[in-house]
Amino acid sequence: MGRTFLTPAHHKMRVEQLQEKLTKDEIDTFLVFNPTNIFYLTGLSFIPTERPIILIIHQGEVNFFVPSLEIDHVEHQVPFVSQVFSYFEYPDVNHPMNHLADVLMKELNIQPNKVASEYAGPSGYWGYKGPNLEDATGLKFILLPDIVMDMRIIKEPEEIELMRESSKWADRAHKYLQEFTEVGANEIDITIRASTQGSQDMVRELGDAYRATGFSMFPAIALYRGQIGPNSYFPHALSGGLVFKKGDTLVTGASSDVYGIHAELERTMFMGEPSARQKELYNAMMAAQEAALEAAGPGIKCADVDRAARDAFKLKGVYHLVRHHTGHGLGMEGHERPFLDIGSKDVLQPGMIFSCEPGIYEQGLGGFRNSDTFVVTDDGIEVTTKYSRALSELIIE
Amino acid sequence: MGRTFLTPAHHKMRVEQLQEKLTKDEIDTFLVFNPTNIFYLTGLSFIPTERPIILIIHQGEVNFFVPSLEIDHVEHQVPFVSQVFSYFEYPDVNHPMNHLADVLMKELNIQPNKVASEYAGPSGYWGYKGPNLEDATGLKFILLPDIVMDMRIIKEPEEIELMRESSKWADRAHKYLQEFTEVGANEIDITIRASTQGSQDMVRELGDAYRATGFSMFPAIALYRGQIGPNSYFPHALSGGLVFKKGDTLVTGASSDVYGIHAELERTMFMGEPSARQKELYNAMMAAQEAALEAAGPGIKCADVDRAARDAFKLKGVYHLVRHHTGHGLGMEGHERPFLDIGSKDVLQPGMIFSCEPGIYEQGLGGFRNSDTFVVTDDGIEVTTKYSRALSELIIE
Repeated sequence: MGRTFLTPAHHKMRVEQLQEKLTKDEIDTFLVFNPTNIFYLTGLSFIPTERPIILIIHQGEVNFFVPSLEIDHVEHQVPFVSQVFSYFEYPDVNHPMNHLADVLMKELNIQPNKVASEYAGPSGYWGYKGPNLEDATGLKFILLPDIVMDMRIIKEPEEIELMRESSKWADRAHKYLQEFTEVGANEIDITIRASTQGSQDMVRELGDAYRATGFSMFPAIALYRGQIGPNSYFPHALSGGLVFKKGDTLVTGASSDVYGIHAELERTMFMGEPSARQKELYNAMMAAQEAALEAAGPGIKCADVDRAARDAFKLKGVYHLVRHHTGHGLGMEGHERPFLDIGSKDVLQPGMIFSCEPGIYEQGLGGFRNSDTFVVTDDGIEVTTKYSRALSELIIE
Repeated sequence: MGRTFLTPAHHKMRVEQLQEKLTKDEIDTFLVFNPTNIFYLTGLSFIPTERPIILIIHQGEVNFFVPSLEIDHVEHQVPFVSQVFSYFEYPDVNHPMNHLADVLMKELNIQPNKVASEYAGPSGYWGYKGPNLEDATGLKFILLPDIVMDMRIIKEPEEIELMRESSKWADRAHKYLQEFTEVGANEIDITIRASTQGSQDMVRELGDAYRATGFSMFPAIALYRGQIGPNSYFPHALSGGLVFKKGDTLVTGASSDVYGIHAELERTMFMGEPSARQKELYNAMMAAQEAALEAAGPGIKCADVDRAARDAFKLKGVYHLVRHHTGHGLGMEGHERPFLDIGSKDVLQPGMIFSCEPGIYEQGLGGFRNSDTFVVTDDGIEVTTKYSRALSELIIE
């Protein structure tokens, strides 16, 4: 069994790394709003609502500003928390931002010119309205929207282990998806059955090692999302309760949540023996994916990986069927920076994780896209999703 | 069977209503970024990614600005679309915002001082970075972040019908949740089984009338979210794979997606005969919910509905166990404005829909909260969730 969670000591180390950067920039106090970044730094997972929840890193100490309904939740989840400041509710008679101003100015006694924030203020999520930080406090905040995200781009060895584990359960759930799919079935039924079975396997086999973060209803997921038959032509179709028919091209998706880390696995499958054109387009797509994976490695430009896939498509005469670039960063969110795109200025570095998913789309026939997850290593790449890409194994009889 | 979807004619009517407001403000061109607002106005549902997708209402006509992977998707879903402008990909060699500037300045020939936008630019979702609208075009944009949300606050009769239907399927899924729950079972298993069964009922019984929007993996959902036994003390706990034990207090949740409209249903249940204290706190919570529902009606202040619940808690001597206000607006998002909160300045109006969910939380014992969905009518309220609140019917033997 691989790694399935991170420890509070690991989160504490991340806070210390962030603090080092802040100290270098002579910043005493930093406010974090992004829920994913808060989880990354502290292990606190929570349901984002209109009520502001703010991590306040102040002189190396971890403080929170939360609504009353989250006070004990924080103390329960973050053993190294220093102080939990709170307000009763949003909107309330006294706006939360007034409470925050009091906390910053009177309790923490923050200093002008030494205070930074991810955002100008809480986002307008779920009906929230309020003044920004500057209006609430009268202070100037240095905005550092990318400082935590920049840490997240290079994955630690422990995160790579989580990604391997996530890939394993994505593969498992996808096995059920393929097994359950049949002519006449409804995509919603098959999605639920495969995700149920995959999740049950995961929860049962991992036992106590599985630490739910609450981010996903299904720990493991394998799904159809409307990319069935001619509708698979739409690269980002949405589930529509479609029914499988003989001759359909299918594009699937699978993942699993291992302590907030999500692998990406997608396959093109066929309902019965594929036609000559279906085979031709599948093979062209495979050539592009192979070209991209072969091009990828440490020190290579993201743009060049995308270019390798595009060149392969051109060679096959299907470049006009391309609708998107080759891939994107992976980790805690569905897509992350950097992108495998001809416009990217980034270079692949050990510890980066990407999807590799060049695709082509022919109107009337369908979409052809496999997505695999790969980690950049010191001397090449490691593909963590192992599901077969052999056409013969992707035919549903 | 109730209403299960809206027609393109209905969406078109909403665009016309918005256009009337824009005309009154002498605005020629309005840019909409919020995916929920785009669905509300046009019926287009899509997967938000780092690639900007913008609805451009220009002189009454509906135009879109989308990445190439969404072009046909828009034409497929929005029959009354005028023009679909596109860029190939994000980030690409030429940034999408440069393409947008060309579309606005050269294709649509927009006029200074007559152009408005929901936001200053695309959000930083999933790794997106780019200039704001002003920097990209050199024009000043009037920001109207609330104009569509303000339309959404008063629900149309058709939306109220969707909410009744959503409530019905939330009730159904919750019935399975209660039926399947037993000592020794895992919350994740029961959540998946109940949501599967409820969704299958919904998809099968509605048949062709069910129009998936792709927003929800489960059309109907009934879940545990970690509020089990002493952990139910955390009002916003997250699923943790907990196992049911005799004596546990449980707090549940249920909803269903009927063309993007979501009811809210939550119940407090007990694993076996409740103790005297469990009964006492359940009854105190019920008294507060009853007081709030009795207080609610057209012309009543949101603050007074919250006050009614708080007064009931005070009368029962449990006000110190309160951790949040009485409710929030409902419709397409989990929470919406206005809030049933002592700090709200809003007044209940016919067509508004709210949750009513006063709650109390005792450390070591658990949480006590029922949530029901109600519509404000011309002469009172209509509670659309019908699931029993009688304590005797919420005991799991």
